[in-house]
Amino acid sequence: MNIDVSKLERIIGYEFKNTEYLITAMTHKSYAFEKGRNTKNNERLEFLGDAVLELVSSDFLFRSYKDKSEGQMTKLRAALVCEPTLAMDARDFGLQNFIYLGVGEEKTGGRNRDSIVSDALEALIGAIYLDGGFDVAEQFIIKYILNDIERKKLFYDSKTVLQERLAGNDKEELKYVIVDERGPQHLKEYEVEVFYGDKVIGHGVGSTKKKAEQMAAMDALNKINIRNK
Amino acid sequence: MNIDVSKLERIIGYEFKNTEYLITAMTHKSYAFEKGRNTKNNERLEFLGDAVLELVSSDFLFRSYKDKSEGQMTKLRAALVCEPTLAMDARDFGLQNFIYLGVGEEKTGGRNRDSIVSDALEALIGAIYLDGGFDVAEQFIIKYILNDIERKKLFYDSKTVLQERLAGNDKEELKYVIVDERGPQHLKEYEVEVFYGDKVIGHGVGSTKKKAEQMAAMDALNKINIRNK
Repeated sequence: MNIDVSKLERIIGYEFKNTEYLITAMTHKSYAFEKGRNTKNNERLEFLGDAVLELVSSDFLFRSYKDKSEGQMTKLRAALVCEPTLAMDARDFGLQNFIYLGVGEEKTGGRNRDSIVSDALEALIGAIYLDGGFDVAEQFIIKYILNDIERKKLFYDSKTVLQERLAGNDKEELKYVIVDERGPQHLKEYEVEVFYGDKVIGHGVGSTKKKAEQMAAMDALNKINIRNK
Repeated sequence: MNIDVSKLERIIGYEFKNTEYLITAMTHKSYAFEKGRNTKNNERLEFLGDAVLELVSSDFLFRSYKDKSEGQMTKLRAALVCEPTLAMDARDFGLQNFIYLGVGEEKTGGRNRDSIVSDALEALIGAIYLDGGFDVAEQFIIKYILNDIERKKLFYDSKTVLQERLAGNDKEELKYVIVDERGPQHLKEYEVEVFYGDKVIGHGVGSTKKKAEQMAAMDALNKINIRNK
């Protein structure tokens, strides 16, 4: 497999001076390990990119929300740069298709795993920063990550939002119930239903119980919003 | 109390275009609270400065240590930007003397508290970044924080270093014993002795058990180094 560097550059809207940075950013350790010890993986670039992302998002929130406290900004930043949100952003422009992955990792569905996809996005940010500098990385982050903030906040903390949303109503209890648990240990999938009283109001699937619950809460919120329109 | 802005600017080697940033950075919430609700405190600037510091130190480590793994760099970064190290850096140029502190906080020794001093340093970085831009903040961080790395690594993780240092010797056990615990709940001070077998080889004091143990381990390491010279 060889990734189409020019295609990826067109998608992200930046042409690298040194495409080696880009290729390293796209190399998961499982692939580097198979190729031998001289092949670089993307972990160091991820370390760097994570810090670039942290500053750009902090600066953005600081300037956008003059009235928010440090605690509120910290929460909002966590919603924007958490693993599932970043993985979603990466999939929005198809980044998962450009990752060099080891054979074993490919077989067990690594290309769809949030952690691998979001790490690749952070490594890509590190590569853009190294090659093009802070301003270019900032533009990329603003375009692909710091968008649609309200939706991401919801995605991050649907359970709290749902709780608040229903708090005004009668005293029915919200309950999350695991209805299925499948797959081998390292690739578990949980299926959750959220009950309001004895009625199922949402349904979600995720790789951890917590993620499945968030998805179920988001599903419930979407249904409530549609009903209220 | 009014802080001497020019003096602080001379110390840090940067003259602000807008000194309000500097004054806000030096304003602890206890002081702002006493002055009334329109007085800004340094918490938002600390949020920003923390992210600037994270990127500058990550970038510095990334470029300085081409062979270190992401995990090793993460550990090293933690040693450089942890609360006690930052407080030490800040005291090196006397930052604690320029903090606007509330009366109660002053009375209970807040001016010497690591958390207050290190937060003020991060807020100062945020202020420099806002007023002078990334490069100016970077110069400041390199000069005042990213120095003396080996010593700081030791400071951060003396217990591990001491353990490794003595591992080659006979099988005597290292033991940390709290010999005194004093002060009111919010201002506890712990005194710890580290034993090698039945011999006391180091002594430390700190605001938590962990800090006191680190100080004791560092004390032991210093004594071992002096003996070996």
